[in-house]
Amino acid sequence: MVHKHGGDVYTYSGVRDFSANINFRGMPGKVREAAICAVDLSVHYPDPDCRALRQALADYENDGRRGMERDAIFTVGSEIRPEHMICGNGAAELMFALAGAYRPQRALLAVPSFYEYEQALEAFGCTICRYVLKAEQKFALDKDFLDTVARFVEETNPAIVILGNPNNPTGCLIERKVLRLLIELCREKQVLLVLDESFLDFLSEEDRTRTFSGVSVVPEVSNVFVIRSFTKIYALPGIRFGYGLCSDRKLLDEMRRLLQPWNVSLIAQEAARAAVSERGFVKESARPVAVNRGPRAGALRQAGYGVFPASANFLLFRGPEDLADFCMQRGFLIRDCSNFPGLERTGDGQAYFRVCVRSQAENEALLEVLCARM
Amino acid sequence: MVHKHGGDVYTYSGVRDFSANINFRGMPGKVREAAICAVDLSVHYPDPDCRALRQALADYENDGRRGMERDAIFTVGSEIRPEHMICGNGAAELMFALAGAYRPQRALLAVPSFYEYEQALEAFGCTICRYVLKAEQKFALDKDFLDTVARFVEETNPAIVILGNPNNPTGCLIERKVLRLLIELCREKQVLLVLDESFLDFLSEEDRTRTFSGVSVVPEVSNVFVIRSFTKIYALPGIRFGYGLCSDRKLLDEMRRLLQPWNVSLIAQEAARAAVSERGFVKESARPVAVNRGPRAGALRQAGYGVFPASANFLLFRGPEDLADFCMQRGFLIRDCSNFPGLERTGDGQAYFRVCVRSQAENEALLEVLCARM
Repeated sequence: MVHKHGGDVYTYSGVRDFSANINFRGMPGKVREAAICAVDLSVHYPDPDCRALRQALADYENDGRRGMERDAIFTVGSEIRPEHMICGNGAAELMFALAGAYRPQRALLAVPSFYEYEQALEAFGCTICRYVLKAEQKFALDKDFLDTVARFVEETNPAIVILGNPNNPTGCLIERKVLRLLIELCREKQVLLVLDESFLDFLSEEDRTRTFSGVSVVPEVSNVFVIRSFTKIYALPGIRFGYGLCSDRKLLDEMRRLLQPWNVSLIAQEAARAAVSERGFVKESARPVAVNRGPRAGALRQAGYGVFPASANFLLFRGPEDLADFCMQRGFLIRDCSNFPGLERTGDGQAYFRVCVRSQAENEALLEVLCARM
Repeated sequence: MVHKHGGDVYTYSGVRDFSANINFRGMPGKVREAAICAVDLSVHYPDPDCRALRQALADYENDGRRGMERDAIFTVGSEIRPEHMICGNGAAELMFALAGAYRPQRALLAVPSFYEYEQALEAFGCTICRYVLKAEQKFALDKDFLDTVARFVEETNPAIVILGNPNNPTGCLIERKVLRLLIELCREKQVLLVLDESFLDFLSEEDRTRTFSGVSVVPEVSNVFVIRSFTKIYALPGIRFGYGLCSDRKLLDEMRRLLQPWNVSLIAQEAARAAVSERGFVKESARPVAVNRGPRAGALRQAGYGVFPASANFLLFRGPEDLADFCMQRGFLIRDCSNFPGLERTGDGQAYFRVCVRSQAENEALLEVLCARM
């Protein structure tokens, strides 16, 4: 099998899935209705240019839905326009199109991170440079990482730096100051900086003040590429929808050349259009995640697990290496992270695991199992 | 705009669409129901390996659903297995993955044909050799074409020959004898022969005896790649589903490496599984197409149009170059084929057009408009 991921409810049926990081509130009612109505429209081809959808997404972004202020070092005023956007059959498709279109010689990744970055880059012959984040530093991007980036951008182009904000599977966000420096470093040397914001919507009010969205600089800085996903926050991984934002028109055109014309299904386009009209849903979802995450991390620590600080809707922790099997036998699917580069087992009997933050009742049920193992 | 296609009901809303070649009977009820039920399942990721679906497709193929006898020159007995299959977000996605994975230096296409072949190949730097089919020969693949293939396969590899059976937009099928020779020629020189059978399901009983499906040779001949689409026959272009069949495991693995893990949505997987259980639907669909196509072609000829013989659910004909505008003003969308290589306008005031064969009532409504122009 080429791929091994969370959310594999096909190999392990009938289990409660904590391995995929999907919004536990499920799909908003209007998104579900739009998707169902779209089935009857699906005797037609989807719009290859996603025209109505890209306009809706531009409005959505410009509405400043996230309540994040624009970053002051960049000119404010420029708006996201539909032509800054490219839509994908999930965010993962865009990573492949980006790797194929940009054809970087070298890529710098801070691992552990989403494995598809490497898979997409390697499919197009890119050399991967891994910066291994340190558990002692709680996997944060620090001064040492910035020095690495500074050296990296001095070398041959075309090159690419890919970071998750917040990162998967660590849950770590990129601090405002660090992100600003990263953008400056990459801008100066025209290295493409890819910010995967698939989990940014889950940030608490407090965490939102600690970072900012790369979208705020997209109109002015052509070498920033932001990836957004509706899969997680709107709970539609089976429908698939993600989009990219960038002001490098040539790059977007090249990506489109590598994609089939009808890559975004009509159902995905309709569901995504309904999602952007659900303005309150993101905040309503982020709040209970933050509320549920804290006590749960505390309880895990109390039980003796090494839990890392998290800003997204999942927790990374360290525990006995047979823990996933132990949970599986009790009907719970959790993500053994040992196949993430940077989280490999070291033979000390411990391993890294990731669990999604779900409803209070669900979390407690899992917690009971996790406590039973310690 | 990069792409220009039939079925663009977004630019031209509120029209009756004869420009896309979709089964006029619409989506089977069970497929529609499965797609609707799948919306609620879509809070989960789709199975990246499409395991249940590939098994169902293998059974479907082995059932000899088409009623086409196996071709006698090849060993009978070998069955299609799930590992011979790769699933795609529509057949078009597979063309791109195939071009990227096989990386042919040269491709031979018999034009006019589906434009995405060229787009996919060019995206990966392949040199396109066009064999221009002759209107005088009714766009059939003849001796002269076979001679061209014979010369083509003698030159440098890796090379690829791509043909539609039946071909789009001509509607022409590949005669049994010609197809057999093509397979032999390509097999001998290990040139990849791609047979796009997206419209094969629409063949009449009679036409089925004139050709055969490339699937019959897939288990034995590793350089034949068959493309199938559910988009047209099951009327689900907005859901997207197609698959490829080939016994070259290395090639399929390489294609998978270029595709994101979750390329086939959960809704598409569920709809396709429901489709294969609708065993009678294909025959029930092919019959009225054949019944409606004949009289319609006759009526068009009587009105003064130059109509080509067709085996699929569409007709190619020649008419005054303003015909598409004339129809549009009267609420009918037809496909002006002038942007197909090989069907360019020549300045004689005429152009090629393609119309889908739909229900008798719909066909008559369009016919009235077409007759009014002559």
